[in-house]
Amino acid sequence: MTLERLDSKAERHTRTVMVRDVAVGGGAPVSVQSMCTTDTADADATLEQIKRLVDAGCEIVRVAVPNADALDGFERICAESPVPVVADIHFDHKLAIAAAERGADALRINPGNIGSVERVDAVIDAATRAGIPIRIGVNAGSLDPKVAEMEGLSLAERLVLSCASFVEHFEARGFTNVVLSAKAHSVPVTIETYRMLAERLPDFPLHVGVTEAGTLRQGTVKNCAAVGVLLEEGIGDTMRLSLTADPVEEVLVAWELLGALGLRRRTPELVSCPTCGRTQVNLIGMAEEVERRLQEVRVPISVAVMGCVVNGPGEARDADIGIACGQHKGVIFVHGEPLRTVLEDQLVDELFLEIRKRF
Amino acid sequence: MTLERLDSKAERHTRTVMVRDVAVGGGAPVSVQSMCTTDTADADATLEQIKRLVDAGCEIVRVAVPNADALDGFERICAESPVPVVADIHFDHKLAIAAAERGADALRINPGNIGSVERVDAVIDAATRAGIPIRIGVNAGSLDPKVAEMEGLSLAERLVLSCASFVEHFEARGFTNVVLSAKAHSVPVTIETYRMLAERLPDFPLHVGVTEAGTLRQGTVKNCAAVGVLLEEGIGDTMRLSLTADPVEEVLVAWELLGALGLRRRTPELVSCPTCGRTQVNLIGMAEEVERRLQEVRVPISVAVMGCVVNGPGEARDADIGIACGQHKGVIFVHGEPLRTVLEDQLVDELFLEIRKRF
Repeated sequence: MTLERLDSKAERHTRTVMVRDVAVGGGAPVSVQSMCTTDTADADATLEQIKRLVDAGCEIVRVAVPNADALDGFERICAESPVPVVADIHFDHKLAIAAAERGADALRINPGNIGSVERVDAVIDAATRAGIPIRIGVNAGSLDPKVAEMEGLSLAERLVLSCASFVEHFEARGFTNVVLSAKAHSVPVTIETYRMLAERLPDFPLHVGVTEAGTLRQGTVKNCAAVGVLLEEGIGDTMRLSLTADPVEEVLVAWELLGALGLRRRTPELVSCPTCGRTQVNLIGMAEEVERRLQEVRVPISVAVMGCVVNGPGEARDADIGIACGQHKGVIFVHGEPLRTVLEDQLVDELFLEIRKRF
Repeated sequence: MTLERLDSKAERHTRTVMVRDVAVGGGAPVSVQSMCTTDTADADATLEQIKRLVDAGCEIVRVAVPNADALDGFERICAESPVPVVADIHFDHKLAIAAAERGADALRINPGNIGSVERVDAVIDAATRAGIPIRIGVNAGSLDPKVAEMEGLSLAERLVLSCASFVEHFEARGFTNVVLSAKAHSVPVTIETYRMLAERLPDFPLHVGVTEAGTLRQGTVKNCAAVGVLLEEGIGDTMRLSLTADPVEEVLVAWELLGALGLRRRTPELVSCPTCGRTQVNLIGMAEEVERRLQEVRVPISVAVMGCVVNGPGEARDADIGIACGQHKGVIFVHGEPLRTVLEDQLVDELFLEIRKRF
């Protein structure tokens, strides 16, 4: 059983953009990104955070390059990171050029805040020399100045037209090694924008996500609603789910979403019933304990924790392995077959004994 | 400014089903439900939990009626609950009849586990006498026996055909005061099932959600992906987002989702940027502090907490009020206009001073 058994191909067929060894677009599996919150000048701290992100499943990592003092650290990070590193650049085209020369696997710029056509061209030329892609990352705060002045457009239309205008310029300069993003903090605007992008610029892989999505609960809800709708329609080639939280959470939520949609699974799926007045065991505690211990299991099996006899047996049979609990005891199921009855306080231990034995 | 300024009408136009004073379907706003985890026989504990759920925004509450010992408590709960109470019944038609006689505002049954056509008819007749609706709640664990035997059908098709078969029987008995649900624990199956239900049984309001969705992170992701896709398509009239967690979380996540989709908002929206290497203030702490203090604010304003000068000013201007932070200090914006610069440690206090003054 491989980690990627559920991988399916995206429905859109864009160009394939290579970010070091990770394919984005062209039918490649939707990849999971996050962004470091460390000081890039502190390469040790950043590499340590990258290690935690990679352990959680991060496949592409972005780091800010806010000033020239960050460049030495950035170079070391690129050399030592186990996953491709994207340089996040704002305002200063010289930093983008330096990042490309010092080992960036991709650049993320918003051409709308780089300052002039000549400076954008200098960045394009640096990426061409380095053989790396550029993500054109437009957001509501810095649209193409030409588009920002147009009247009567929705925010989604402004974002898409900004992207289209930048893409036209990049193509005119012979550079098509491009991924696009156009993020908003509103879920309906994000959905509308990416639907239009997919239709209007069908050749380019799309980096999807909601910007400034908020803290853990709100950010998870907004990202899953917006990116869930898009991925379900086959829109989106790589994703970063912004959360105002430890970036490891972004990666965990991204994988949960890919697994929930049946697109990719990296870790086990836990199926647990909501408790109700019929529950005769401490199901929340049991499900949390199972979820915690499943973090050590790296096979994409489906594990059920069911709290009562009403739905338990019927539902738990769908899972690869599961427990269905009655009063003070429960039954372990494996691939639909009841295995044995176990006392409540041994149920989780016995479940993991079977998981280790069988998968 | 009212609490419901963002309410929009569902796109489907089903019958309207009244659950006490809450309209479900027929263009009514999508209502938020949850289910008590207390022992129904303990009316005090259950009413206390209902109070917490209602404070969080729960509009319809479901309680299990697992046996006759629960009926006295159930009667008191119905009499004293500030929101309508749905009796959740499995297996025993006599409990359903008793619940209807003792004040239930609705019954939830799965006709597939009630035992016989005669027993289902007795429940229908009890609901007719009491003038209350029935939710036909089908799930994968207990399909219509006729459908369960058919070969070559997907789970989604089995769920929809079970619903259709039950509805046909209810209609033949002259009972159409019905809400439908057909939940699965798989997100793709849930989406496929409800799309088919909406097409095949367009007259009936739909109760949407994912069953056995899991603990807080996984359950939030699965529910938001599935229900997000459905609501975005106009499918779903009332919702319960099952989480293996405190049911108050179900209500909070449900409202976050309705707000994120622009359908309804009850509380303020927090827009906060993900932190990155450019952040010069403790943004996670500040955003969490703002989120915590916003729980006391009951107007649906949009509040921005931005950590840097790159996206902050441009994005925060979209919010009703916001802060954009530079080094050790920040700017408060109100309706797009910078108001004043404030030191970092006074920023949150000053923000709430302005919120209280202005909204």
